[in-house]
Amino acid sequence: MNHPMLSRLREVFDARLSDFLKDYPEDDVAGIYNPIHYLLALGGKRLRPVVALAAAEAESDDAFPALPVAMAVELFHNFTLMHDDIMDAAPLRRGKQTVHLKWGENAAILSGDTMYTLANVALAETRNAEYSAVAKWFHRTALEVCLGQQLDISFENRNDVTLGEYIEMIRLKTSVLLAASMAMGAAAAGADEERQKAWYRFGEQVGLAFQIQDDLLDTFGGDVVGKQIGGDILADKKTHLWIHTLAGREGDVLRRWEGLASNPDEKIESIRNAMLSAGADEVARTAMHGHVEAACAELEKMNLNADHDAFFRGIALHVVERVS
Amino acid sequence: MNHPMLSRLREVFDARLSDFLKDYPEDDVAGIYNPIHYLLALGGKRLRPVVALAAAEAESDDAFPALPVAMAVELFHNFTLMHDDIMDAAPLRRGKQTVHLKWGENAAILSGDTMYTLANVALAETRNAEYSAVAKWFHRTALEVCLGQQLDISFENRNDVTLGEYIEMIRLKTSVLLAASMAMGAAAAGADEERQKAWYRFGEQVGLAFQIQDDLLDTFGGDVVGKQIGGDILADKKTHLWIHTLAGREGDVLRRWEGLASNPDEKIESIRNAMLSAGADEVARTAMHGHVEAACAELEKMNLNADHDAFFRGIALHVVERVS
Repeated sequence: MNHPMLSRLREVFDARLSDFLKDYPEDDVAGIYNPIHYLLALGGKRLRPVVALAAAEAESDDAFPALPVAMAVELFHNFTLMHDDIMDAAPLRRGKQTVHLKWGENAAILSGDTMYTLANVALAETRNAEYSAVAKWFHRTALEVCLGQQLDISFENRNDVTLGEYIEMIRLKTSVLLAASMAMGAAAAGADEERQKAWYRFGEQVGLAFQIQDDLLDTFGGDVVGKQIGGDILADKKTHLWIHTLAGREGDVLRRWEGLASNPDEKIESIRNAMLSAGADEVARTAMHGHVEAACAELEKMNLNADHDAFFRGIALHVVERVS
Repeated sequence: MNHPMLSRLREVFDARLSDFLKDYPEDDVAGIYNPIHYLLALGGKRLRPVVALAAAEAESDDAFPALPVAMAVELFHNFTLMHDDIMDAAPLRRGKQTVHLKWGENAAILSGDTMYTLANVALAETRNAEYSAVAKWFHRTALEVCLGQQLDISFENRNDVTLGEYIEMIRLKTSVLLAASMAMGAAAAGADEERQKAWYRFGEQVGLAFQIQDDLLDTFGGDVVGKQIGGDILADKKTHLWIHTLAGREGDVLRRWEGLASNPDEKIESIRNAMLSAGADEVARTAMHGHVEAACAELEKMNLNADHDAFFRGIALHVVERVS
């Protein structure tokens, strides 16, 4: 996606982030902020802060009241990455060594806790009149994200996960934070509760589509740099693709390979073919398009100005078109 | 300490805690709240929530506005225990198996994150007018506690820690949360900033005394159940006692034993004797009494009613007298 609003708001956010981090210097004597700088410098699309700022601007012509929200969601998101990488024993994050491998698990636990705290510190700069509403969204959402991660972990040892359970898991693990980013951005700019909820519904649908596309890209590729293709297959992840395939006659292929790690290339190849035979990719793509359409329908009802309407429609469509 | 205010406010707190936890049931399908119930059920003195409630009552004759603060500080404190126990590889907490040993490290990381989130959820119930001020105290304090833990860890590999560094570390790791509990309790009840700061100064001194007494009890005993005596010595912890002893001619004993783990009983015995010869226990006790006196001097200036003055003086003196 290449909308001018995206780069403009990203610049606003990056400037604030770099200013904020000056208070927590990398070379601090205790070294506690070092992994935080490292992880944030690995990049990422800054999607959540940008949509938070854009939602505020759509509601009030001013993105600035949502800067604390933008900071909080990006710091929180990166905190979850730091801790999830420990739990997943992931060696790489965006093509670079993960924090727990570079500094050890204890440092990754504590720097993660600190990053979460910085998210809260940043959020507390929200204007007083809006702070309570914004904070309630944030903490409720954080709880749901924790629950989503727990469900994700618990699915690893089950092969009876239903499509409904999968959707609920990705809703909690991925969608709610994107949805809350917009709801909180709008709230910080003074939007009323009805408007906040409309933003949330839009973001929830975009987030679901986003995660299904993520699963598709992980299995069938794109041009992602530094991300292993087939990682979900090797981990026996209960994705949309996996669950659909298991239910059909290709399910035996999944059962045969489950828990096996000795021939990774062959495992990826076999399971990918089974998924294609089962038509799982098409079913997942259809589900994804359904969520994008639902998102666009929500957007329609919101009556944004042409500029912001086009921007957010672009965000929803980008999910489908993106290759990374 | 056996003041009627203590048991009365503890009952108020326990009732709220048990009510709050009903929304996060132990037998939830994902099992994420299980370790949280477990750790909270291990007990503890509930000192932080009780002083938060008492400070609110001292300021406004009503403890109830501080219930969200009381919940938040107790949940936050227990979250730090859960994560610190992973980092310290501690087998026991209050005489029972630690969470990471019982459920695994991943569960302890994620349930800790969830417990921290619940602290934030609880705090967000603070009355709107006071919420922003209370939250700023809380998040700043949480950041300091993380920094204190980081300093504590970094001291393990150093033997040039100064007494000043030690005091700053225990201030961050222990004092600030006790101090902020009272400042936030007062703030939640509508006390102005000057009053909040006075409570903070009182709590800071009590916290410092408390930690020095903790170090003394760990090395010279008391009637603690389920806590290993000599744990600090075996871990080569840079306590007040250790730092003072190292500086004198008994310092060689510490240097000789550093890093050795093969004869734990002999190590504890030798180092304890070295500390006694160096008079480290007396120096630590003098420092502790100094902090208690400073706390009482702060209290004097606060002009509390007789009841609350006696209660908080009791809290300060209890630190010195306690045996567990």
